[in-house]
Amino acid sequence: MHPYEMTALQAGAAIRARELSPVELLDSVLARIEAVDDRVGAFVTVTEDFAREAAQRAADEIAQGHDRGPLHGVTVGVKDLVDTAGIRTTSSSRTMADNVPTCDAAVVERLAEAGAVMVGKTHTHEFAFGVITPTTRNPWNLDHIPGGSSGGSGAALAAGMCHLAIGTDTGGSIRIPASVNGVVGLKPTYGRVSRRGIASLSWALDHVGPMARTVADAAAMLQALAGYDRSDPGSRDVPAADYAATLGEGVAGMRLGLPRTYFFDNVDPAVEAAVRAAADRLAEAGAEVVEVDVPVPEAYMPTEYMIFLSEASAYHQTRIREQAEDFEPDVRLLLEAGEMLLATDYIKALRVRTLIQNGWRDLFERPLDAVLAPTLPNVAAKVGQKEFTHGEAEAIIDSYVRLSAPGNLTGLPALSVPCGFDGQGLPIGLQVLGRPFDEATVLRVGAAWESINPDAGQMPNLI
Amino acid sequence: MHPYEMTALQAGAAIRARELSPVELLDSVLARIEAVDDRVGAFVTVTEDFAREAAQRAADEIAQGHDRGPLHGVTVGVKDLVDTAGIRTTSSSRTMADNVPTCDAAVVERLAEAGAVMVGKTHTHEFAFGVITPTTRNPWNLDHIPGGSSGGSGAALAAGMCHLAIGTDTGGSIRIPASVNGVVGLKPTYGRVSRRGIASLSWALDHVGPMARTVADAAAMLQALAGYDRSDPGSRDVPAADYAATLGEGVAGMRLGLPRTYFFDNVDPAVEAAVRAAADRLAEAGAEVVEVDVPVPEAYMPTEYMIFLSEASAYHQTRIREQAEDFEPDVRLLLEAGEMLLATDYIKALRVRTLIQNGWRDLFERPLDAVLAPTLPNVAAKVGQKEFTHGEAEAIIDSYVRLSAPGNLTGLPALSVPCGFDGQGLPIGLQVLGRPFDEATVLRVGAAWESINPDAGQMPNLI
Repeated sequence: MHPYEMTALQAGAAIRARELSPVELLDSVLARIEAVDDRVGAFVTVTEDFAREAAQRAADEIAQGHDRGPLHGVTVGVKDLVDTAGIRTTSSSRTMADNVPTCDAAVVERLAEAGAVMVGKTHTHEFAFGVITPTTRNPWNLDHIPGGSSGGSGAALAAGMCHLAIGTDTGGSIRIPASVNGVVGLKPTYGRVSRRGIASLSWALDHVGPMARTVADAAAMLQALAGYDRSDPGSRDVPAADYAATLGEGVAGMRLGLPRTYFFDNVDPAVEAAVRAAADRLAEAGAEVVEVDVPVPEAYMPTEYMIFLSEASAYHQTRIREQAEDFEPDVRLLLEAGEMLLATDYIKALRVRTLIQNGWRDLFERPLDAVLAPTLPNVAAKVGQKEFTHGEAEAIIDSYVRLSAPGNLTGLPALSVPCGFDGQGLPIGLQVLGRPFDEATVLRVGAAWESINPDAGQMPNLI
Repeated sequence: MHPYEMTALQAGAAIRARELSPVELLDSVLARIEAVDDRVGAFVTVTEDFAREAAQRAADEIAQGHDRGPLHGVTVGVKDLVDTAGIRTTSSSRTMADNVPTCDAAVVERLAEAGAVMVGKTHTHEFAFGVITPTTRNPWNLDHIPGGSSGGSGAALAAGMCHLAIGTDTGGSIRIPASVNGVVGLKPTYGRVSRRGIASLSWALDHVGPMARTVADAAAMLQALAGYDRSDPGSRDVPAADYAATLGEGVAGMRLGLPRTYFFDNVDPAVEAAVRAAADRLAEAGAEVVEVDVPVPEAYMPTEYMIFLSEASAYHQTRIREQAEDFEPDVRLLLEAGEMLLATDYIKALRVRTLIQNGWRDLFERPLDAVLAPTLPNVAAKVGQKEFTHGEAEAIIDSYVRLSAPGNLTGLPALSVPCGFDGQGLPIGLQVLGRPFDEATVLRVGAAWESINPDAGQMPNLI
């Protein structure tokens, strides 16, 4: 096994056991990037010099007995929406081509504190404003999209170009690329991880969180990222659990909800079959799987769009007025449209959101430990494809956002974990939604499924 | 002393000592209403039958040894914005002339639980949308306004027509009538008291809280009102302190801030002199009074207006479209104007509000126990007066909202306590702002001032 193929925790354990040096690990990852990223296009910037310094520093620290924990020396990709001091941060936008931040984002600070080694900045849909990531391809099939907006992070992980990656999620942008690239992505509870230093798409819906190749890796990364930060107004001072401690405890005795409606509407039959099979396996493993009705489903999409279009247009207002021609046409159109929305409409959307939140609160009080669902109704679309045409035709963005939006509107933690493949060999994702700030349970359900998933642990055959 | 002149705690103590029956107390109050409310106009509805039943029930309970605490049998006026089951609740609007709610608001439930006897519904500016309360006069001088929007509650208390009253405060509407009527009003921390069952003006700025004739009465009333309610999305589950326990501990050793700017700009010299004299007396009582600069003062008024106009127009949208001609012209104008505001402008106002909140958080970390300021730049305007003309001319509403808005925008607890009179004999108010959920300190400072205020405890000479 090449070091780039190890899980983050395997690599970290080998480093701390002094069986592998952070420099060797980095060399393996940089060679992998060199070998495949011309075809995948996951990185905006490979921060080779920066990474070599960080890996050497990690090696020196380990040699001196300064142990930063399980991620010490492990490589990480950072979505280019996230500020990195001294390193160009473009949000994959021409309007930011020359932007070099002077401070690290909170999540970058926290990863450095944990000893992780940033290898590069990963592509996003411009300003996170879409689900395709046009610069990047899907490592499972280069004719397909990697999803988005954290498409670079998802593709880089799947292709072995980093062990961990930072994603952001406003309408599914961690979970969508996790699902279509066959990796793990966790949108934590709103307020769990600080967004300081990350370009905003929609402050009421924006989340940042871990992406990885295994649930245990994602849990270790969340442990590093989680914590209160007074400089993010959305941050909440709720203590983080010890995620590793309960990860392996399984689902015996848990009550897991399986939605009767909405989450299985107009879903690719291969996706539906895979997710229902996973639920059956979890039931066999001791969970009680109960059918549930999700509250006010008809409101999710209009509420999600009204809030994010309004907030994105407010955030980008100066930029769109001064540099409209530098935006991609799809993003420019949405930003200009958002400027016409009325305050009363936006406020009514916030009020509907409260109804949605209260409905989900009540749902979890049945009680339920978690809800199982498909992450997406579909697998990775082909490059250039406009819509999914099985069942009722649906635009790519609407399909991908549809089952993700409830997690953003409610702020509840939502995990995507690999769940087999369709007939073309494209990955499918299982979504696990949990109670507020109960990432521990969500990760535990994900780990239980991963441990019995016969397809777990595969990587694409890129070479 | 007539029973109607007692403080709430005096009346309650006499009732529990069986020296006074709740029925006698109510008779005294109803006679007072009969004697003076034709001139003051504080009540929309006097709920005589309801009150007689409640007083008799309180009397029976006391006789049976069922003690509901210090407010048992004490009379209360409830702003007509607040739902009362089976009793007309009009928000002083023609559009609601026939509205009879089926449920009590949370605060009405809590007062009933505490054994208080509601004597009537008090007038507001239509839907709380102003600071004048056109139906009502100021008991200290009937040619002057009672302020608003809780003008009926303030005037009723001052005139001895109830012992306690419920007010609501979106831009000062508890503190403005408290100040101009010479009574005590506390806007609690945002989230401290449930707003369930109260017509909304602006959900991000709306508060409900106690009005009374003494600080101790207000503290006892807050004790009854405070508490988490999951049906108010703004409610916060933060335990209430025992307010009476620390009320008399004085200010020795406290650090109190006195703003160098903003709160003394364009203020009536009589008001400024009274407030600075109160600060000097508190310093003599052992407080360290330090000058402070309040953060981003230029943003308070535009942010307050943008948020409340947008939210009010969203809340009233159906009603204004279907019954525009039933609204008062001033309120209709603002509601129709608010419908034209853009989502981007509203969102930017929310972002500025966050800056204001962070600035005040930093200010209190100097550390400070409380900030002292005038409640209002001016005393009660004359009926029909359009603006204050000393110093820089200013519309009545702008003057009254200007020093109140910081408490609404920050959500911090803010008390108004009587602070002497101007040359015309009109009351002046001292404002005390405190840390989030630290009503105990705010009340303690207010009580300390009240105990050394030579003008404390006066009532107007209405007859």
